[in-house]
Amino acid sequence: MKTLQVDLGQRSYPIYIGSRLLEQADLLTRHIRSKQVLIVTNETVAPLYLQQVLDNLSDFVVETVILPDGEQYKTLDYLNRIFDTLLTHKFSRNASLIALGGGVIGDMGGFAAACYQRGIPFIQIPTTLLAQVDSSVGGKTGVNHPLGKNMIGAFYQPQCVIADMSVLSTLDDRQLSAGIAEVIKYGLIREPDFFAWLEDNLESLLDRDVEALAHAVERSCRNKAEVVAADEKEADVRATLNLGHTFGHAIETGMGYGSYLHGEAVAIGTCQAADLSRRKGWLTDADVERIIRLFKRARLPVEPPAALDANRFIELMAVDKKNVDGNIRLILLKSIGEATLPVGVEKALLVATLNGYGRKG
Amino acid sequence: MKTLQVDLGQRSYPIYIGSRLLEQADLLTRHIRSKQVLIVTNETVAPLYLQQVLDNLSDFVVETVILPDGEQYKTLDYLNRIFDTLLTHKFSRNASLIALGGGVIGDMGGFAAACYQRGIPFIQIPTTLLAQVDSSVGGKTGVNHPLGKNMIGAFYQPQCVIADMSVLSTLDDRQLSAGIAEVIKYGLIREPDFFAWLEDNLESLLDRDVEALAHAVERSCRNKAEVVAADEKEADVRATLNLGHTFGHAIETGMGYGSYLHGEAVAIGTCQAADLSRRKGWLTDADVERIIRLFKRARLPVEPPAALDANRFIELMAVDKKNVDGNIRLILLKSIGEATLPVGVEKALLVATLNGYGRKG
Repeated sequence: MKTLQVDLGQRSYPIYIGSRLLEQADLLTRHIRSKQVLIVTNETVAPLYLQQVLDNLSDFVVETVILPDGEQYKTLDYLNRIFDTLLTHKFSRNASLIALGGGVIGDMGGFAAACYQRGIPFIQIPTTLLAQVDSSVGGKTGVNHPLGKNMIGAFYQPQCVIADMSVLSTLDDRQLSAGIAEVIKYGLIREPDFFAWLEDNLESLLDRDVEALAHAVERSCRNKAEVVAADEKEADVRATLNLGHTFGHAIETGMGYGSYLHGEAVAIGTCQAADLSRRKGWLTDADVERIIRLFKRARLPVEPPAALDANRFIELMAVDKKNVDGNIRLILLKSIGEATLPVGVEKALLVATLNGYGRKG
Repeated sequence: MKTLQVDLGQRSYPIYIGSRLLEQADLLTRHIRSKQVLIVTNETVAPLYLQQVLDNLSDFVVETVILPDGEQYKTLDYLNRIFDTLLTHKFSRNASLIALGGGVIGDMGGFAAACYQRGIPFIQIPTTLLAQVDSSVGGKTGVNHPLGKNMIGAFYQPQCVIADMSVLSTLDDRQLSAGIAEVIKYGLIREPDFFAWLEDNLESLLDRDVEALAHAVERSCRNKAEVVAADEKEADVRATLNLGHTFGHAIETGMGYGSYLHGEAVAIGTCQAADLSRRKGWLTDADVERIIRLFKRARLPVEPPAALDANRFIELMAVDKKNVDGNIRLILLKSIGEATLPVGVEKALLVATLNGYGRKG
């Protein structure tokens, strides 16, 4: 097991990365402060891992909320079900909330913990690759609104994150690929050697080789932790983690939450950002090809949905959190391994990418 | 005008206290960062003061949310109306939210600002005495849940607070008295001289003498600011600000939000806490009489509602945020001017107060 410390002063916390971590009760219980524990999970994960976590908590008063599985349930209404359970059982301010599931469960569980009695302790057990490399680091929590993704939320840090590679054995192929999309992102924005490592080791990741997965998770979390430690509240460099996300969020919102996985939308969005970076004169044609090829090998979509035309994209991108006074700002690439801070983009170039990249005939 | 600085490191902010402050546009605009401004207010305050604030913001893009007036609307559903407006108008992360109203508007506006895009700048213009002395200092924001008051929220600091004594001229008598209940609390928990000043100057406050009101607001805010600066997240001494509130919240929840004003419930709850402090051997009979007399002179209720018996009180008090593992803890008084930290209470004594204090026959 590796332990990666996320350095945020008083809010620092460890990420445990390794195999069969759910069998180690102590990893979990050392971070719990009182007898009251709420587990938030979903209908897919509960039959697989809930009992294992409950077995670790036999000395505690444990309640469970099992939500339906999917981004379309990441709403204020479903969040309120968590509050209902906490209040029905009179949970106090020192009760702990464990989020057992993918990114949606982590975001909702974290936001519920942030808001319940203005903040209770929170532990993340991410069960998808995406959640292990992305939503488990950085403290971003929240829910969606019909008019925009992740528009309601809080920055809130967990007590610890338990990233168990063993749980990835039950992850379906599509979810695994979606997680790899975010892994590739870390190579693209700040570590060219890791991007090259991914080109060499992609098949091992797709084969769920535990060593390769642990390396990918550790490199991704370390990169993200360094960025977040430098800029917790996203004043500048943290925004680079959003490479591909402004396009990606537009795809998720525009197509309806749940039709594309987050990582799939980010894969497409990153290819669009790469295309726009080429039009800016920063990436070469060969760079863009290399990026698209790696996403394709990871069995990810790389072309925007035909149903969203350029106007609709721009409309959806106008509510992005990076924007200033309504002007669209994007993270682009200076090279493979170096992202820009958010930059305003000439509308003609953006339209050229939206109409020109990945559009057939 | 007096300026009181609330000292919270990077989150420090000024409270402006004086007359005719709404006429000074610069007090407001110096704290706004971008063109986008949302004003959240209610149906009572809007006809009185909204235009005055709008006149100060002629250079900005201003949207307004007007909520119905009352504690019963402090819910997630009404909070969502604020998000709807922010998103419909594509407000960015550097947009400002102005809460123009009493405690309910301050709590909801502040919580909306805390959550929208994980936090946007927020300015408080409290229009009731209660909000000026209580909810404008300390960063507590949030909404109610059917099972408990203020159970969903965040700690979130404003950019500034504009406490204009002139707006108190239109406050109805019952609201004025409710505010005085919280003012009396500051004397009781930590400043015996201020309690004595209130005994001498209560009629001036009831007559809305601007000088007396400004003094009361300034002393209250200074006391609260000192407590909050010492303990922002309510690890210990901040809990003393909750004198009377555990009983009071039970009254508000048990009788239905809106039947008692918050300050009215706190007045009753503080008398109950004083009675329990006497049973603990800390206050004398004369102390308790002195406390009850001042609340009565302020035209506040001092007896618990007959509809809530001791069992129902205890049931309602069991969800209080100060509790640990479900055990009720209360703030009591060692003397007039000195509060305890949260203490566990022998159930027999609590029942004696609930059955014995203020119950006829």
